[in-house]
Amino acid sequence: MEPQGSHRVEYDVFSSACPSRPTLEHVTGRWGTLTLGALEAGPLRFNTLLRRVDGISQKMLAQTLQALVRDGFVHRENLSTVGLHVEYRLTALGNDTVAQVSRLIDLLESRMPEVLAAQRRYDRAEAVTTQ
Amino acid sequence: MEPQGSHRVEYDVFSSACPSRPTLEHVTGRWGTLTLGALEAGPLRFNTLLRRVDGISQKMLAQTLQALVRDGFVHRENLSTVGLHVEYRLTALGNDTVAQVSRLIDLLESRMPEVLAAQRRYDRAEAVTTQ
Repeated sequence: MEPQGSHRVEYDVFSSACPSRPTLEHVTGRWGTLTLGALEAGPLRFNTLLRRVDGISQKMLAQTLQALVRDGFVHRENLSTVGLHVEYRLTALGNDTVAQVSRLIDLLESRMPEVLAAQRRYDRAEAVTTQ
Repeated sequence: MEPQGSHRVEYDVFSSACPSRPTLEHVTGRWGTLTLGALEAGPLRFNTLLRRVDGISQKMLAQTLQALVRDGFVHRENLSTVGLHVEYRLTALGNDTVAQVSRLIDLLESRMPEVLAAQRRYDRAEAVTTQ
């Protein structure tokens, strides 16, 4: 609840009607996370991104970039007048966001042994239950 | 690159074959993010989660929780012997993860005015281009 007289607009991703919901999905979707993460090191061209984000299709990368550009996380730079040399780089907002995304990626990568052990325990328990 | 003789296994979410990839997807998927975020405040029952994560279907919540339980982020606790009272709560790994997820959510919610302004600029530019 906002105090009376406050003009601040509240955004709540838990509410499906909030405009922050699609933005959360663009940033945290499987491909959004990896595309932002790939751009953390610096500007990249489309084809380099396509190789870096292993498994993404051309179409899906184009869609992911379009959503991230529209939301203001990524800047699309035309480096030549003929439009053949395009580079994607993080905006200031994208930089702040990728800092959080990268911490999440680092955490997950470092805790994978724990995750794999949990998966083995779960699958063993399932096997017992379904016997 | 790992030094010679190191036995540490490296995980890389950018590689599609890495087991960390599906785990990243469970945690950062639209529903994974929100389900983890909802559990940050404390244990919740299924129906409370269903209301809190506005827009999720019963089936999707069940699938999301199953993946998060299997990966070891969420613990499913049977509070009665008849199995009618089940509670979901974060594990230690889930707690560490949700801390990053929440920072991302807080950042996005607080920067939404910037996102909406970027979307308006993008849509105006598109309108000009397609005229």
